[in-house]
Amino acid sequence: MKSLIFSLLFISFSGSLYTQSFNNNNLKHYSNIADEIITSSLNDTVGYNLARYLCKNIGSRLSGSENSLKAIKWAEKTLIDMNPDTVWLQPVMVPRWIRGNVEKAVLLNNNLEKTLNVAALGRSIATPEEGINAGVIEVNSFEELIERKNEAKGKIVFFNYRFKNSFVETFNGYGDAVKFRVDGPIEASKAGAAAVITRSITTKYDNVPHVGTIRTFPDSVKEIPAAAIGLIDAEFLSKSLKENPGLTINLKLSARNLKEVLSYNVIAEIKGTEKPDEIIVVGSHFDSWDKGEGAHDDGAPSVQVMEVIDIFKRLNIKPKRTIRCVLFINEENGLRGALKYAEYIDSLKENNIAAIESDRGAFTPRGFTVEADSSVISKMQKWIPVLEKSLIDWVKPGHGGADIGQIKNAKALIGFVPDAQRYFDVHHSDNDVFEEINAREMELGSAAIAILAYLISEEGL
Amino acid sequence: MKSLIFSLLFISFSGSLYTQSFNNNNLKHYSNIADEIITSSLNDTVGYNLARYLCKNIGSRLSGSENSLKAIKWAEKTLIDMNPDTVWLQPVMVPRWIRGNVEKAVLLNNNLEKTLNVAALGRSIATPEEGINAGVIEVNSFEELIERKNEAKGKIVFFNYRFKNSFVETFNGYGDAVKFRVDGPIEASKAGAAAVITRSITTKYDNVPHVGTIRTFPDSVKEIPAAAIGLIDAEFLSKSLKENPGLTINLKLSARNLKEVLSYNVIAEIKGTEKPDEIIVVGSHFDSWDKGEGAHDDGAPSVQVMEVIDIFKRLNIKPKRTIRCVLFINEENGLRGALKYAEYIDSLKENNIAAIESDRGAFTPRGFTVEADSSVISKMQKWIPVLEKSLIDWVKPGHGGADIGQIKNAKALIGFVPDAQRYFDVHHSDNDVFEEINAREMELGSAAIAILAYLISEEGL
Repeated sequence: MKSLIFSLLFISFSGSLYTQSFNNNNLKHYSNIADEIITSSLNDTVGYNLARYLCKNIGSRLSGSENSLKAIKWAEKTLIDMNPDTVWLQPVMVPRWIRGNVEKAVLLNNNLEKTLNVAALGRSIATPEEGINAGVIEVNSFEELIERKNEAKGKIVFFNYRFKNSFVETFNGYGDAVKFRVDGPIEASKAGAAAVITRSITTKYDNVPHVGTIRTFPDSVKEIPAAAIGLIDAEFLSKSLKENPGLTINLKLSARNLKEVLSYNVIAEIKGTEKPDEIIVVGSHFDSWDKGEGAHDDGAPSVQVMEVIDIFKRLNIKPKRTIRCVLFINEENGLRGALKYAEYIDSLKENNIAAIESDRGAFTPRGFTVEADSSVISKMQKWIPVLEKSLIDWVKPGHGGADIGQIKNAKALIGFVPDAQRYFDVHHSDNDVFEEINAREMELGSAAIAILAYLISEEGL
Repeated sequence: MKSLIFSLLFISFSGSLYTQSFNNNNLKHYSNIADEIITSSLNDTVGYNLARYLCKNIGSRLSGSENSLKAIKWAEKTLIDMNPDTVWLQPVMVPRWIRGNVEKAVLLNNNLEKTLNVAALGRSIATPEEGINAGVIEVNSFEELIERKNEAKGKIVFFNYRFKNSFVETFNGYGDAVKFRVDGPIEASKAGAAAVITRSITTKYDNVPHVGTIRTFPDSVKEIPAAAIGLIDAEFLSKSLKENPGLTINLKLSARNLKEVLSYNVIAEIKGTEKPDEIIVVGSHFDSWDKGEGAHDDGAPSVQVMEVIDIFKRLNIKPKRTIRCVLFINEENGLRGALKYAEYIDSLKENNIAAIESDRGAFTPRGFTVEADSSVISKMQKWIPVLEKSLIDWVKPGHGGADIGQIKNAKALIGFVPDAQRYFDVHHSDNDVFEEINAREMELGSAAIAILAYLISEEGL
């Protein structure tokens, strides 16, 4: 891109495709507030700096871990420093799973004793200390597993289902492939398998295992250990099996499910000036997997909803309705935080009129997907001329979020949708580190969520 | 993002905010073609692999350099291998500027003899071999330069204007700051300065100089050398000047303007089956600066428009109108390729009905900005239900592009607009390398441009 020729045509262009306007004369006022929010976010990068601290000084935050408690204390203190009306911790028991020190898969009777890059899947049990020595059967569907049930007995089942890159929405590619990680272990056990190795669900071709949870085994099915394998090693294993179908692997995992422990949701709120009983939740899950730093999933998005509180406070915006930031614990392997929060608001008969969730990474904003009556969605679509300042191009019907999905009777459950092309490059893996966050992209997300929360607080739904 | 809870709600959702439909019954047909194009782009990553070759095996492509000729030959051969109807080189004389081996700025009478990270700006002349020893005056506006004219005489003028991060559209931040790089040297010379050092125009805080062209000096103004400085060193220099306003710098640059040399635009086309005389240009500039690999500017975008040819050929799509890929040479420091091409089509009275330019990086598609009558733009907006498959959310009035901007009488000059939050992290610098390209983001851009070219070829404008 050249300097001399590139004209000022690009500057100051702010055409909107939406011809509808607000039913009141507040458009100009709201636009000014939106500009203030965006300018402050991009200039001050408060959220980005907090995300650096969370990722680099605390790190990953698996439910029940000591690190997760350290992070919770940090979030509580950080929110208190932002000076909202209330900050509190909501106790909740969470499952505790630990990876342990040993995860190793060695190809035994290959020409060279090659070690494969594996990582235990969440909730997996350990192998015996000496490992499981077993042959391997590669399958690419549950149908194939059932057909080849006799072969699977006593073996390690290797689910080698490839992420379908042709899905434009990477979340759909994830949705297509994730059943093998989630349900694969139970299905393999039903077929008599000794263990499971699953190809990582990722858009990035490297050798980093991408983990995530497996479904809890029902009592009727014997628990077996399960691990993810990096893509390069998955290809290697598949090729090795073609050359030598009789190869065996020694798989050692030391993962364990421990007793439930006490943890907390972190909650902060700014009381509404006119309708304090109408609560707008901005939420994100604060736990992560124990790989990488949980930067995009869901550290930076958690900081985005924390920053919403700070934006209101530092710009002295006094919302008519209450803005409540909720950092939910244990989304990844239990959803206990979200269930506890929902139980709490039910018991108080609180009116959570809307909830916005950030759990798709901290990339450039694109839109909001909304679970609501069409009249509510239509109302929100009229706000596009304000929202588009932060690069929100659309508001569409669609998924809200896993945590806010537990909230009953909200008028709108809203998912923040950033660009997702790179999300599964890093998701649930050692790739998910602070360096993958771009300050501008993240801050525009904070701004977009803050602007929407503000509009709901002023206009209702 | 959790696995179990994330529902299939996200899958298969394809609601459009646009209720208008095509005036014909071709929507389904076009949608199928778009799906084919997208699937092939994302699965085959033809363009991404070509971009790897261009960046890694050839590298940067400054106009007139041997490397640029190597790249032109590679592009010609690559396009021939795609088997379109025509591939040819269009000769054009281009300016030749070389950086030379020496670029060094040493802070002399500081406590330590610190070397600053500088790089000559395009078209800059050399310093004397022993360098320029001069004091430094920091200014942040042309007004300040004029006010402090007496101080500037014989000095190195240090333009330390900061990129305004508050611009949501980074191109606007660039447009705001670039005058100091482009016009700074002439203005400083008018004030009697000996040389210029300019703060790099970038969104990334590191110490990498970002280069780019300066305006050609008019005969009446004495040429002086000019260099860009990395942001960390710009801050250091500014701080040092506050502590010691009398500090001097020894600046050595060996850059030179050589005689013009012969170069080429590369042109390939697929003849239309029904209206071959109506030509749709897909264009990009093939030259780059000599820093980094010219990956996002404008290597990958050049490959995107090359890939449009390949997409039509490999999917056996026979366009009604002619599709012509033009790789323009010398956009960065002369625009000679674009001017030659425009002269050529004028001389033949060719009917270039539309042109689409890719020169804003190879990030995730967002939209198209269009210079055209409003009726033409309205027509294109009706295609959104097809275009949005490749993540094109909007078609708006706006800038087409520097190269296609030379084409007279086109019905539409169209700029492809990807996400631009990271573009100026890499622009014109050693940061602009292949590793900064994401395969999916780039391929969705190829697909978006191909789909739009296809729609124009079928529907006209």
